[in-house]
Parts: sequence; structure tokens; C-alpha cells
Amino acid sequence: MPAAPLAVSLGDPAGVGPELIAAAWAERENHGLPTFFAAGGADLIRAAAHSRGLTLPVVEIFHPFEAMDCFDRALPVLAGADGDYTPGAPDQDGARLALASLTEATRLTVDGGAEALVTGPIHKARLAEVGFDFPGQTEFVAAACDVHEGDAVMMLAGPHLRTVPLTVHIALAQVTASLSEALIERKGRIVAMALMRDFGIAAPRIAVAALNPHGGEEGRMGDEEARLIQPAIERLQAEGIAIDGPFAADGLFAPRQRNSFDVALCMYHDQALIPLKALDFDQGVNVTLGLPIIRTSPDHGTAFGIAGKGIADPGAMIAAIRMAGDCAERRFGV
Amino acid sequence: MPAAPLAVSLGDPAGVGPELIAAAWAERENHGLPTFFAAGGADLIRAAAHSRGLTLPVVEIFHPFEAMDCFDRALPVLAGADGDYTPGAPDQDGARLALASLTEATRLTVDGGAEALVTGPIHKARLAEVGFDFPGQTEFVAAACDVHEGDAVMMLAGPHLRTVPLTVHIALAQVTASLSEALIERKGRIVAMALMRDFGIAAPRIAVAALNPHGGEEGRMGDEEARLIQPAIERLQAEGIAIDGPFAADGLFAPRQRNSFDVALCMYHDQALIPLKALDFDQGVNVTLGLPIIRTSPDHGTAFGIAGKGIADPGAMIAAIRMAGDCAERRFGV
Repeated sequence: MPAAPLAVSLGDPAGVGPELIAAAWAERENHGLPTFFAAGGADLIRAAAHSRGLTLPVVEIFHPFEAMDCFDRALPVLAGADGDYTPGAPDQDGARLALASLTEATRLTVDGGAEALVTGPIHKARLAEVGFDFPGQTEFVAAACDVHEGDAVMMLAGPHLRTVPLTVHIALAQVTASLSEALIERKGRIVAMALMRDFGIAAPRIAVAALNPHGGEEGRMGDEEARLIQPAIERLQAEGIAIDGPFAADGLFAPRQRNSFDVALCMYHDQALIPLKALDFDQGVNVTLGLPIIRTSPDHGTAFGIAGKGIADPGAMIAAIRMAGDCAERRFGV
Repeated sequence: MPAAPLAVSLGDPAGVGPELIAAAWAERENHGLPTFFAAGGADLIRAAAHSRGLTLPVVEIFHPFEAMDCFDRALPVLAGADGDYTPGAPDQDGARLALASLTEATRLTVDGGAEALVTGPIHKARLAEVGFDFPGQTEFVAAACDVHEGDAVMMLAGPHLRTVPLTVHIALAQVTASLSEALIERKGRIVAMALMRDFGIAAPRIAVAALNPHGGEEGRMGDEEARLIQPAIERLQAEGIAIDGPFAADGLFAPRQRNSFDVALCMYHDQALIPLKALDFDQGVNVTLGLPIIRTSPDHGTAFGIAGKGIADPGAMIAAIRMAGDCAERRFGV
């Protein structure tokens, strides 16, 4: 048993976040989930559970440690912020509640009251309207941890694959200019450390994807492989890291090749996300590496279109909670 | 029964081409393959078959129509060019043989002696050394058909997915500047026509992938979606084509979404090839659309490293032959 529970933020209350928290609690035993609590929204989660046909016992708690006692029989929810459940109809009140929940769950995890942070899916444009000034939750959490944004590394993890996009939310036209030897090296090192410390892989095998088709074919279609990627790989190899590449990206996620590495470093968002979602949709977890805290998130959006209809798949939320618990256990011990 | 057999070119004789032709013939009944012949290399194919433990009856023929009579009991091979079988050790003699085989198979198909063309995997750098002046076989075949290179459209097809890369063998840094409304429109039209004529899909549903992550998020990460892609889609829709998008590329190949379209138009090589190879490796077929002839190819390379070891999977070669036969039957009738 961990010493402290996990904190789960609601996400946008008009999205699937609240119902997936309820569904995860309902399936806690099947999936061996660690103790967690929701950061606010008791009435909201009750209503969301009801929309899925779940009658959910909820216990309001005032401090995270209270979750340890009641988790077996009821979903613990921090008393405080709450709202009306209007699935599929996001508004600014909902965005404010999502932000309050994220802020509180993050604070409790940074302070050590919660052992890890799991964030529900938010709607970025809506959050921006109520003053959220970050490209996404990853950057918000990094700032709360006093970690430079560039050192908080997003990894996507599913049953078949782990991938890391080295550049993330930028136009494709800016990818090439945004890559540097230093960036690849720094993030490669953070990934290697995190797989050892948090994922229990003693000598993680890291594959690096090429930027250009066929790896550039010896410079005929781009020279970034030789100019940036190869030197960074050699530098990390010299530190004893089991890293190899650059490999032509198209074949890298085919069955034979993907079994030869523990994580693929990818050069841009879709290079990392396309194979992950093709192979592990509804199971993908977004993990932030390089932080003093453990933070995971289901790798899907608010899914406003299906919220409240009882059809949203809780697989990724369940996987995110379990992975956060597993990582916390490895890093902080039992 | 088709009126004429399919022509299959050897590919690089040091690669897996010859043994896969032999393996495909050996499995012709299991897979209901149409009649085909190899363009040259009788001794070579015999030796390659032997390396897989196959004792292959080979009949040398002097004209494609002779294949119709003997295909049941032996692999028909055009008399003429041949060479030594040295798997894994490519050389210029081999490249010359590969080029001769490709040239003859293409000529026979263009002339109508063969009903469709299936090309074995070549090694581009090696072929270039012996005077092959094309980026790949697709462009060679287009030129032989007097079709402008830009109108010969590559489609990858597997059991789970069909994708078309709208730009192909260029550096990632050049992708954005290489895209235009006209390009998307022209290739989209060729794809729609080909799926109707050659694939028997009366009203093909075409999904268009976005260029930028999350489809650019309304211009925050690139404006090509609104500026180039959307207008091209609207133009094609106005012609009655069932085309939609642009869709964020990362989710497009997840199970639910990929069942909603017959083909995805992708903006660059790896966007199309990553999901195809992740889902359909060893089964992927490369089809050239927009030509007066039918041309397919297994979607893998020469695989010099495993040639002659009896372990190369013939799945893609078998699928390429079957698809060529199916397309020819639809286009030219029985």
C-alpha cells in the first residue's frame, strides 16, 4: 500500500473526465488500482456516474490521507469546488472548475499530500478564456514544479509502444528549425533516467526516429540525420545509454522493429502520436518525465460529443491511474 | 480467367525478390493467385527457391501468352536475361539484370501482352550506378506510360488501411512549401477515380489528414489547413466526391476513425507510411494510381540482410500479385 493516495483532477466537467473517474473507481478491483481521490466535484461526479448507470458512493474528504480509509467502499472526493453537470455543453464556469481542480490536485501532489497526479482532459481554448496561460497541462505542471518547460518531457505509453515527441505543439514547417543536437541530447537523457527510475527498466533501449523519409537516404532528402541526430546519439552512447538510430520512421513501428526498443524518440508530434493511437487507442497514457512529481493523464481529449452518453471508454483513465501508482511505487518505495 | 498473365519483375537479384516470386507461385492455390510470369532469371529463381527449401518447376517461355497453359504446373519465366544467385551481395551485374527485368516487364504490360505489372524490390542507389535516372520505379513506370510524374499517384494498401502520400521523397523541411491547393485537388481526383474503377468502390470515402498537429488548432500551429487543404476539399466535394477533412492526423488511424474512410490522403511520406506499416507490415502493397496500366509492388525493400535465408515473408508479394489481378479484372473485365 502506498503511503498517500493519488490526486485526480476532474478535467472539463462537460467532458468525459468526471464519468471516467467514476468508472475507474467502479472497476478499481478488476484493475488493481491504487487509492486515489478526485479533486473536487462531488455532486458532478455523482451525476456523471448516474449517466453511465452507476450508483456511486461518494465520500467527501478534507485532506488526502482520509482517502486511504474509505477508498474500498466509496470514491473519495475533496470537499470544495463543485458545479452542475451539463455534459457536452462546456462553458466558462466549467473551465473555472477544471482549473481549480487542476490547481488543487497539482498543489497537493507537489506538497506530498498526494503521491502522484493524474489529470483529466481539459479544453485548452476554454481554459485560456478564464486565464490559463499555458500551451497545455504539461507546461502548467512543470511551472508548478519550478521545472523549465523544455525539461518536462511528454511520453506516450500504451500496451504496444512508448513514444516521445521531441518537439510538440508547433507547425510542421517549424519542426526542422526547432530541432537541435542539444535538444535531442537533453531530452534523450531525461527519458533514459525516467525509464530507469520510474518504469523499472534497468537499461532502457532507446530508438531514435529519423526526421526525413528513409532517414534522408544519405543526405539526398535532408541532412538533419547526419548533422543533428547522429552526433546526439553518439554523445548519449558515450554516457552508456543504450540508444540507437536514426531509423527510418515508417518501419520503426512495425511489429518486429517495435519489439526491439523500450521507447522511440520522435522528431515531431504526429510521428510519435500516429503509431501510438493507431496501435493503442483508448489505452494510451500521457506521462510527464523529468519532474520531481509523477504525473500521468489519459491520452484523449474531453470528447464533448460522447460525454454523458455512457459510451466513453475508461481504458486510458484506468491505465493512467495504474501507471501513476506503479511509477510512484518504484520511485518512492512502498 | 484473365486473357493475359501478369508480369512480375525480379527486383534486385541479391534481394528477396526472386525467392518471393518462387514462394508466391508455390502458394498460388491457397491464395487464388492469377496467372503470372517472371520477367527473366530462370536459373536465379530456381536457386532462390532452393534456398527456401522449394523445388520449383520452372518453364521458360518466349511470349507471355504461353504462361496461361503452364502456370498450373510450373512457374513461367521469360527466357533471356539471367544471372548468378548471390543473396545479400548486390553488385552492378545484378542491378543491370534488375533493370532489364523491370524494363521488359513494363514494356510487355504497356503493350498489352501482360495484363498488369508487379515490380519486385530494387535498390535505388545501385540502379542509379547503372544508369537508372528515376527517383523510384513509380516514376520509371509513369515515364514508360507517357504519364506526367505528378499524375502517377502512390497508394499504400493493406488489410486495415489505404493511404496516399501527397508528397513523397522530399525532406520534411520541404513538405509545407511543396503542398498546394492544386496538388491536393489533382491527386484527390485521381485517387477517387482509381478507387471507383480499379477497386470497385462505387462512392469512395476519402479522409484528408491535416498537416499540422491537432489540425493546426485554428491557425495557432500553422495555417495550411484553412489556406490549402480546406479549399481543395471543398472543390472536390462540389464535384460530388465524398471527401472530408482535414482531420488531425494522430487520431485518424485509430480503430474507430479508420473504419470511416476508404482511403486517407496524407500530406507527407511518413504520415502515410507510419500507420500503414504499424498496422499492415508484411501485407502492404504499393499501387500506382492514374496510369493506363495496373502496377503494384510489395511495400518492402530488397531486405538484403535476410535474402537467401528462407525467412522473408511472402505476404506482401502475394498481396501485390492478387491486388494487381483483382484491379485488372475490374478495369479490363474477364
